[in-house]
Amino acid sequence: MSEVAQRKSRRSGGREARKALRAAPLAEDIRPIRPGLEGGNYRPLSEAGVNRIHQAALEVLETIGLADAPQSGIDLMTGAGAILGADGRLRFPRALVEDMLAIAGRDVTLHGREARNDIRPGGSRVHYGTAGAAVHIVDLETGDYRDSLLADLYEAARIADTLDNIHFFQRTVVARDMEDPTDLDVNTLYACLAGTTKHIGTSFTSIERAEMGLEMVRMVAGSDEAWRERPFVSNTNCFVVPPLKFATESCEIMEAVIRGGMPVLLLSAGQAGATAPAALAGAVTQAVAECLAGVIYVNALKPGHPAIFGTWPFVSDLRTGAMSGGSGEQALLTAACAQMGRFYDLPSGSAAGMADAKLPDAQSGYEKGISNVMAGLAGLNMVYESVGMHGSLLGFCPESLIIDNDLIGQALRCVRGIEVTEDSVSIEAMRTVCLEGPGHYLGSEQTLSLMQRDYVYPVIGDRTSPKEWAELGRPVLIEKARERRRAIMSAPPAHRIDPAVDAAIRQRFSILFPG
Amino acid sequence: MSEVAQRKSRRSGGREARKALRAAPLAEDIRPIRPGLEGGNYRPLSEAGVNRIHQAALEVLETIGLADAPQSGIDLMTGAGAILGADGRLRFPRALVEDMLAIAGRDVTLHGREARNDIRPGGSRVHYGTAGAAVHIVDLETGDYRDSLLADLYEAARIADTLDNIHFFQRTVVARDMEDPTDLDVNTLYACLAGTTKHIGTSFTSIERAEMGLEMVRMVAGSDEAWRERPFVSNTNCFVVPPLKFATESCEIMEAVIRGGMPVLLLSAGQAGATAPAALAGAVTQAVAECLAGVIYVNALKPGHPAIFGTWPFVSDLRTGAMSGGSGEQALLTAACAQMGRFYDLPSGSAAGMADAKLPDAQSGYEKGISNVMAGLAGLNMVYESVGMHGSLLGFCPESLIIDNDLIGQALRCVRGIEVTEDSVSIEAMRTVCLEGPGHYLGSEQTLSLMQRDYVYPVIGDRTSPKEWAELGRPVLIEKARERRRAIMSAPPAHRIDPAVDAAIRQRFSILFPG
Repeated sequence: MSEVAQRKSRRSGGREARKALRAAPLAEDIRPIRPGLEGGNYRPLSEAGVNRIHQAALEVLETIGLADAPQSGIDLMTGAGAILGADGRLRFPRALVEDMLAIAGRDVTLHGREARNDIRPGGSRVHYGTAGAAVHIVDLETGDYRDSLLADLYEAARIADTLDNIHFFQRTVVARDMEDPTDLDVNTLYACLAGTTKHIGTSFTSIERAEMGLEMVRMVAGSDEAWRERPFVSNTNCFVVPPLKFATESCEIMEAVIRGGMPVLLLSAGQAGATAPAALAGAVTQAVAECLAGVIYVNALKPGHPAIFGTWPFVSDLRTGAMSGGSGEQALLTAACAQMGRFYDLPSGSAAGMADAKLPDAQSGYEKGISNVMAGLAGLNMVYESVGMHGSLLGFCPESLIIDNDLIGQALRCVRGIEVTEDSVSIEAMRTVCLEGPGHYLGSEQTLSLMQRDYVYPVIGDRTSPKEWAELGRPVLIEKARERRRAIMSAPPAHRIDPAVDAAIRQRFSILFPG
Repeated sequence: MSEVAQRKSRRSGGREARKALRAAPLAEDIRPIRPGLEGGNYRPLSEAGVNRIHQAALEVLETIGLADAPQSGIDLMTGAGAILGADGRLRFPRALVEDMLAIAGRDVTLHGREARNDIRPGGSRVHYGTAGAAVHIVDLETGDYRDSLLADLYEAARIADTLDNIHFFQRTVVARDMEDPTDLDVNTLYACLAGTTKHIGTSFTSIERAEMGLEMVRMVAGSDEAWRERPFVSNTNCFVVPPLKFATESCEIMEAVIRGGMPVLLLSAGQAGATAPAALAGAVTQAVAECLAGVIYVNALKPGHPAIFGTWPFVSDLRTGAMSGGSGEQALLTAACAQMGRFYDLPSGSAAGMADAKLPDAQSGYEKGISNVMAGLAGLNMVYESVGMHGSLLGFCPESLIIDNDLIGQALRCVRGIEVTEDSVSIEAMRTVCLEGPGHYLGSEQTLSLMQRDYVYPVIGDRTSPKEWAELGRPVLIEKARERRRAIMSAPPAHRIDPAVDAAIRQRFSILFPG
């Protein structure tokens, strides 16, 4: 065989090999991206800055403290060493903060109903997922922001269940067709459970409803023991009303769910320029102080109970006072919170991806892209709100879940980073190609071996050439998302609640959802 | 006055003060974002990784070297210590690399034709701008990718001139109506000069045409001395054909422009998986090696001559071999190159913002947002291609320039980061608000003082509430960009070439552009 023929053969062999590789399914451990990739190469704060914020938070806790704790919380926290002032505020000596940090839960697993969906926030391991309490659905058929319904929540859970880069499902919308608050809480939890086996986050509006939620998850798990062994639902708990007040009833709910074995997200959602300082460092400081108070509260009740350090400051457009989730300021706040979480070595969660854009357009893309990649690069363990949100959290768009799944795929690829090894610097590959070989790396052994292990390909994102794209009739991203949405929803649900359990749940609770 | 009345008065006072502040123009030095903000908080590579890539590049230069240098380059570089092998490749001992790095130009100013547009790449100072050789205009009226023309290039320069977050203007499109290569080079340079006084980058297709370009810029400057004092045009020079070959004629052009006092962008544009290793670390290594060879070349000719270290690797979609500028792999490559530039402390440039998306849609937004913010956070001095590009660099969209200007505003806000000071951690603000004040930070002194200094507001990006948005008739981002484009182009050009100089240029050159 002539040299040219040999080369040709090598090249077409490469093409065949690529085709074969493309068709093969990928083992989980060699997928280029997966839940829990380690971030942390981006550090928005200097070490001195981190320490200054930490010291400031300690001073705030010691000298300003938090108002409005329920009596049960006052008893728990003063029992641990907090001091109740004549002004009704609880203040926390530095030593108490340090003691509680020492016993706080760090080895936390947020279970899926299926073990393959377990995630392990902590360290600098990054997970992206949903969240929100949107009151509107962004309806791309009509262009309207319409009221969100229970069926929308179920659909969101179904769609999220199928998307690889969405690692957990926190309730995305308020089901506004549930007028009774018990119906709302019960059916919200049910719709999430019916739609996905990924870890679920939800909130409760009273202690009684929290107890009902606990009852439901125990039924789904099979027993209290089985539930406590692998709790697959967390309580999103807004335990503070910033600035620096406990949310009295939410705290009581928190106590109830902790006793019931449910992990909590300690959510401090101040808004810089409104309920938190406009200075970004101040907004971080206040959120850290509030969440440290939460850590004290949780660990005074149950040492080591799984809790996410949910420093979750929002930002105002200071001209109007309105929230601006899509701003650069927001992206920085979230990334700085990630860094503080890593400083305390606590499982951390905050929000990114909260576009101000009303529709999935270019603005929505860059607002979500910038904040989500920064959150991941900073090593945020739980990136909430990362997909699907519009209108500064007021709207949720099912098609955007699908579009944003590709966005998160890119962010995860960036979080994974660049491996620098003797092999990857590729001196030998260069030597072969330049001194012996064909002068290019197409179809080389290294190229083929990296095609699936190192490179991420979008699911609906377009990579055609302009010529191919025109030939395909100029496919529109939103249309592709819409088709994918239809395909997902017309397939049978992948995971149902066991029919016997489902019947029992329907007997016990008012499930306003067709069986 | 009652306490309530006092509060009300304070609050409405705040509102008035905000309005007044909003109306006032902002002094340059207190603008929240500006050219040259310092990045570097994101380090995609470990120190060991950086060093390994550096050592690998040295080994590549020493043992593989580069082929195809012109005789003049061989003479210059062997004179400096390079070794010409029997295989025609120039190899570079480590000591030579180190010697040349020691004398390379670091204090580089890329001048604007107006001094206010001067930029100073180096350190970790970040600048965003255009670049490209797109052959299509993305025509949003028709949805077509049509041929790009000289008038399109002029329009791009005009639009970029008005946008605050575009800091330099490198030629964006190939004027396909210029059939003669001399017409192309001459008119490309002319259209850029006619459209903007920001620093310009352009390329030349022969030594003769480079000399013509030098003649034109001397005419615009007024004299050779004035030109050399403040050179306002750089030569984008693809001096290598990766892997590891000099581009013979481009090198000769480089020598000519350096003698003529023009800064050069040493552009190494390999494509990982095709003309560079598929392993990302290998693609960086090869680009670094090639650009180090460029540094040797430039400094052997003229020590300290201003040159941008243009490690500019692209990435392939390995399934098809096509370029994928919008991928996470690309964002990582660019960020890693930024870090290598900082390691050598050379003015560095690379490409970000190269969307694969064909239109300014959500995909385009996240592709550009992710790569641009990572480039800035990594401290890349010159972020080329950052705005306006689509279809993996094949298409340029004037409306996207305007949309992307807001995107870059957010990226710059993120690059600026979070100042942590005694004041910004806001302990006193919290104390006042929680223990004495109204319980919120709206209209507080701190909030007002930060409204313009610390917060960035988009120019056309939408931050209305869903209700306001509906009342405004659901404004569409692309439409807003189109209106802004029309407004810019219907205003008289801000900067013309002096009429006498213009007449002289038209007499000397074939300017195919209406006067």
